[in-house]
Amino acid sequence: MMGNRAVVLFSGGIDSTTTLAIAKAECLDIYALSFDYGQRHKIELEYARKNAENFDLKKHLVINFDLREIGGSSLTSDIEVPKNSQKAEKLESGKEKELNIPVTYVPARNTIFLSFALAWAESLHATDIFIGANAVDYSGYPDCRPEFIKSYEEMANLATKVSVENNIRFKIRAPLIELTKAEIIRKGTELEVDYSLAWSCYDPVSDDRTQSAEHKQKYNACGKCDSCILRAKGFKEAGLPDPL
Amino acid sequence: MMGNRAVVLFSGGIDSTTTLAIAKAECLDIYALSFDYGQRHKIELEYARKNAENFDLKKHLVINFDLREIGGSSLTSDIEVPKNSQKAEKLESGKEKELNIPVTYVPARNTIFLSFALAWAESLHATDIFIGANAVDYSGYPDCRPEFIKSYEEMANLATKVSVENNIRFKIRAPLIELTKAEIIRKGTELEVDYSLAWSCYDPVSDDRTQSAEHKQKYNACGKCDSCILRAKGFKEAGLPDPL
Repeated sequence: MMGNRAVVLFSGGIDSTTTLAIAKAECLDIYALSFDYGQRHKIELEYARKNAENFDLKKHLVINFDLREIGGSSLTSDIEVPKNSQKAEKLESGKEKELNIPVTYVPARNTIFLSFALAWAESLHATDIFIGANAVDYSGYPDCRPEFIKSYEEMANLATKVSVENNIRFKIRAPLIELTKAEIIRKGTELEVDYSLAWSCYDPVSDDRTQSAEHKQKYNACGKCDSCILRAKGFKEAGLPDPL
Repeated sequence: MMGNRAVVLFSGGIDSTTTLAIAKAECLDIYALSFDYGQRHKIELEYARKNAENFDLKKHLVINFDLREIGGSSLTSDIEVPKNSQKAEKLESGKEKELNIPVTYVPARNTIFLSFALAWAESLHATDIFIGANAVDYSGYPDCRPEFIKSYEEMANLATKVSVENNIRFKIRAPLIELTKAEIIRKGTELEVDYSLAWSCYDPVSDDRTQSAEHKQKYNACGKCDSCILRAKGFKEAGLPDPL
C-alpha cells in the first residue's frame, strides 16, 4: 500500500529547505506542508511558495490556524523578539548549556506541525515524515531534540489506523539533527538549494505585521534576532556568501 | 507556577461533555477547547457552544483549520458514513475483536487535538489535559486506546519548554477510558450534565453540510450511524431516556 512518498515540513527557512532537498533526492513523490499560524514572520510563507517551485513537488499544502489565540511566544504574541542576545557568543565559546530556551519558542509548535504531517501521511499512504529539526546550532527548542523526535515516532505508531490494522511503521526523519548550521548550508549547496529564497528572520516587520505580501519589498531581515545571527554565523563558517 | 487549571477537549458529544463535568468537579479553572475542522457534523459546535454556558468556564476556545484538505475519512471527505453497520450487534455479542476501524476514523485527529491542547496548557500554565477517549463502547479508533494516551503523555513531557526547564509534568487525563457508554451517561447524569445539548450524530446533513447555524432546526440525527447507535444503546442500558 505504501509507496515511495514522503511528507516534508517546510517552513521556508534554511533548515527545512535543505531538508526538502534531501527528501527530494531520496523519494519519488514529495508532499510539502507549511503552516500559516499567525507567525510574526509570515513573509517566510511567500518565500516558501516561491522556493517550492524549484522542487517538482507533488503538492505544496499550506494549512491555516491561529496560534495567536494560544500565545506564549514572541512569534505569536506581543512579547518582543530578543535582539543581540549573547547566543552567538555562547555558542562559539561552547557555553550552550548556559542558554535558556528563548521566548521565540512557540508552545508545542513542532508537536502540532508533526501531527498534521502524520494525518496527511496516513491519508496519502506515505510512511516517511521529514522535519528540519536541528540540535546543534539551534535555538534551544525542546521539540528539536533527538529524544523528542524518537518519542513522537513511538506515539505516532500507536495513533493511526494503518499502524494498528496494517502494521505500517511511520518514520520521523530529521536528517539535520546532528549538523551545524555551516554543515547544513554546505549540504544544501551541494544539492543546489536556492538560499536566496530561504527566509530566516523572526522579526522582519516590527510595527505592522499584517502588511500584505504585495508590499514585500518593505520586508527586511533585522540582522539582530537569534535566527539572523545563526544564519550569518552559518554562512561565514561555511565560507559562502549569503545570497539573501 | 502551575495552578489548578485544566484544558478540556470538548467536541460537544456525550463523552467530552461528561469529561468536562468531571474536570469541572475537580479543577478550579477550566479552559475548554473545540475545533472547527471541516467536520460533516459541524452542528456539534453549535451544541457545544450552548452547553459550554452551563459550566462556568474560564474560556471556551474554538480553533479553526480544515482537515478536508487532508481527507481520508468519511467525516471530512465524500466517503459515505456507514449506516446500520453491525457494530452494535457485534458489541453486544462480545465480538468487538472482529470489528475493523471504521471509515469515520479521522487520520491522527486526537493527536492533532491533543497537540493544540498541550500548546494551550503550556501557555496557560496548566498541567492537566482532559480527553473523553473511551476504549469500551467505542468505535475502534486507535487514538482512543490507553496505550496511545500513555505514549502521548510521554512525548508531551519531552516536547515543551516547561517540562525541560521547570520539570513540569503534563498529565493526559482520560477519565472515561474504561467505562461503557451506559456508565458514562450515568456518571454525567449524577453530575447534572444536560445531554439534550450533547450532539452525537455523524451525518446530520447529507446533502448540504454548509447549511448555516440559523437553520439548525433542519438538522436531525440520522439514527443509523455508529455514533447514533452507540448513543441509543447507552441510554437504553443506563435505563434513562435520551433528552435529545
